Amino acid sequence: MFAVTILGNNSAIPTLERHPTAQVVTCNEQLCLVDCGEGTQLQIAKYKIKRSRLRYIFISHLHGDHYFGLIGLLNTLNLLGRTEPLSIYGPAPLEQIIQLQLDSAETQLKYELSFVPLTPGYSGIILIDKELQVSCFPTQHRIPCFGFSFEMQKRKRKLLPDQARAYEIPAAYFSKLQDGEDYRRKDGTIVKNDWVTLPPPPAKRYVYCADTIYDTGLLRWLEGADLMYHETTYLHELHERAAERYHSTAVQAASLAAAARVKQLLIGHFSSKYTELGPFLEESRPIFERTAIAEEGVTFLV
Amino acid sequence: MFAVTILGNNSAIPTLERHPTAQVVTCNEQLCLVDCGEGTQLQIAKYKIKRSRLRYIFISHLHGDHYFGLIGLLNTLNLLGRTEPLSIYGPAPLEQIIQLQLDSAETQLKYELSFVPLTPGYSGIILIDKELQVSCFPTQHRIPCFGFSFEMQKRKRKLLPDQARAYEIPAAYFSKLQDGEDYRRKDGTIVKNDWVTLPPPPAKRYVYCADTIYDTGLLRWLEGADLMYHETTYLHELHERAAERYHSTAVQAASLAAAARVKQLLIGHFSSKYTELGPFLEESRPIFERTAIAEEGVTFLV
Repeated sequence: MFAVTILGNNSAIPTLERHPTAQVVTCNEQLCLVDCGEGTQLQIAKYKIKRSRLRYIFISHLHGDHYFGLIGLLNTLNLLGRTEPLSIYGPAPLEQIIQLQLDSAETQLKYELSFVPLTPGYSGIILIDKELQVSCFPTQHRIPCFGFSFEMQKRKRKLLPDQARAYEIPAAYFSKLQDGEDYRRKDGTIVKNDWVTLPPPPAKRYVYCADTIYDTGLLRWLEGADLMYHETTYLHELHERAAERYHSTAVQAASLAAAARVKQLLIGHFSSKYTELGPFLEESRPIFERTAIAEEGVTFLV
Repeated sequence: MFAVTILGNNSAIPTLERHPTAQVVTCNEQLCLVDCGEGTQLQIAKYKIKRSRLRYIFISHLHGDHYFGLIGLLNTLNLLGRTEPLSIYGPAPLEQIIQLQLDSAETQLKYELSFVPLTPGYSGIILIDKELQVSCFPTQHRIPCFGFSFEMQKRKRKLLPDQARAYEIPAAYFSKLQDGEDYRRKDGTIVKNDWVTLPPPPAKRYVYCADTIYDTGLLRWLEGADLMYHETTYLHELHERAAERYHSTAVQAASLAAAARVKQLLIGHFSSKYTELGPFLEESRPIFERTAIAEEGVTFLV
C-alpha cells in the first residue's frame, strides 16, 4: 500500500476542530511522518497509526505549526520503550533544538535517533530504503523550507507464469525471475528474463509541497505526480495577503496541479479564520477537477 | 477571586482523555499559568481562559510533560497580536530553548517576554504584584524541580462605616482609611486609623508541589495552606515504583496534607496506566478527608 493519512490540516493558529500540519505516508510496512505540529502524537493515537512502524520523520521548516509536536513524540516513543531506530530529516537547527531539550531533561533515548540536516536550497535524493525513495526540494517561504517527493518503486518484475511454465522453469525459481535473473536450462540454453516477465509497474509518486508562495518553479517536481499536496492557506479574495505571507490560495494550487498534469490534488494548511472548507473546493475544482480536502483522519491512496 | 483551574492532570505519557500538567491560578484580574504541557493552548481555548489576562508563567521543571506546550503558546499569543508583557519563571536552560526556537523561525515577538531563571535549590519570594505574592521552593525529583506558593494578600483594611461616620469622617476619605491612614479633624485632633478599620483578612495561600518524591521536608511550605496540590502519579501498590521514579502515591500526598493541616488537598499527575481515578480518592480520603481530584476544566476556590 502507498497512501497518505492526514493528521492535521490547519495553519499556524491551532483550533479545537483542526490540528496543525502532520501527515503519515505509508509505503507498505514502512511509515514516514511528514511534519509534526503540536499535538501530533495525540492524532497518531486517535487514528491508530502504528507507532512502531514509524521509521522516518521529515520536517519541512522550522515554523512551529510544522514541528512543535516533534519533541513530545520523540519523548513518548522513549517512554513507551521503543528500541527501533528513527531518522529525522530537517533544517539543521532542529538537531540542536531537540538535543537541548533531551539534555535539559537528562533523557537518554533508548532508541537510536539519527538526524540528517537539510542544507537551505538543496534538492535531490535524500533516502532510498526498500521500495521507498525520497527526494527534497526547496519551496519559497519566509524561512528555508523543503518539499518532499515520495516515490514507491516496486523492484520486482511481473512474472508471466504461463510463459515460465512453457519454458519448463521450476516454480522454485520464480522469485529469481522476479528479481530479473535469466534461467539456464539443463541443456545449457538460456531463457532470457524478459521472455517470461514484464518490467515492474512505473513508480508511483506523492509530492508534498509544504508551505510556499505560488511558484511555477515547483512544476519540475510536480510533473506527472500521482498525488500532490499543496497548501491553500487562503481563498482567492485574500491572494494579496497570501503573497505577503509567502502562502498560496486554492486557485493557485489548482493552477499548478493542472499545469503539472498530476492525477490528484490534496489541499490543506487552511487559515484558522475559515470554519467552512467547502469554498476551497468551489474555487479549485473549476480549475482542477480532482481536488480533495486534506481531511483529518482520512487516508488517500497514491 | 483566588482560584485554581485545572487544564491537565496526567503524567508523562499523554492520553486522549487526560492532558499533561497545566493549571491557571486566578488572582482577581491577574492570571498565572503553572506548567504548560503539550496542548495547553488548546485547553486554554477549550475552557475559555482569558489569554489577555495571562501575565505570569511558572515552569516547575524541564520534563516535557510540564513545558512542551510553552513555545506553542508563546507563538500563538504573538500571532493573535498580544502586546502586553509576559514573564516566565523557570529553570535557566528554558530561556535558551525558547530563544533558539524563536530564532529558527525568525520570529520577533511583538510583546515583551522576560525570563526569570530559578537557580537549582533556591527558595524564597520571586514575585510581588498587587495582591499576589509568589514564592518558590525546591522539590525532590530526578532533575531540578520547583514548587510554587501563591499568596493573595488583600492590602486594604476593612472599613467600619458606622464608626467612621460617628467620628464625622467624610465618605470621600474612606478609601484613605482603607489604605491605613489616620484622619485629622478640623479642630486638629486625630482619629487613629484602627478606631475605624479592622486589619485586612489573613492572606490565602495555594501551594503547588509539582513533581516530587514523598518528602516531609515540604511541610514547612505547606503548613496551614488553604489549598495544596500534590502529585499522586501512582496508587499505594506501586509505592516502590513511585520512589524509584521520584514520584508519590495518594497515601503519601494525603499524609503530608494531614501533617501540614492544610484546608484542602488537590491530587493529580496520574499515570496514564490508570483509566479510573476513583481509587485515588479511596486511598487518600481515609487519611485526609478533604481531598479532591484535580479534574480538568474544574475551578477550585482557594
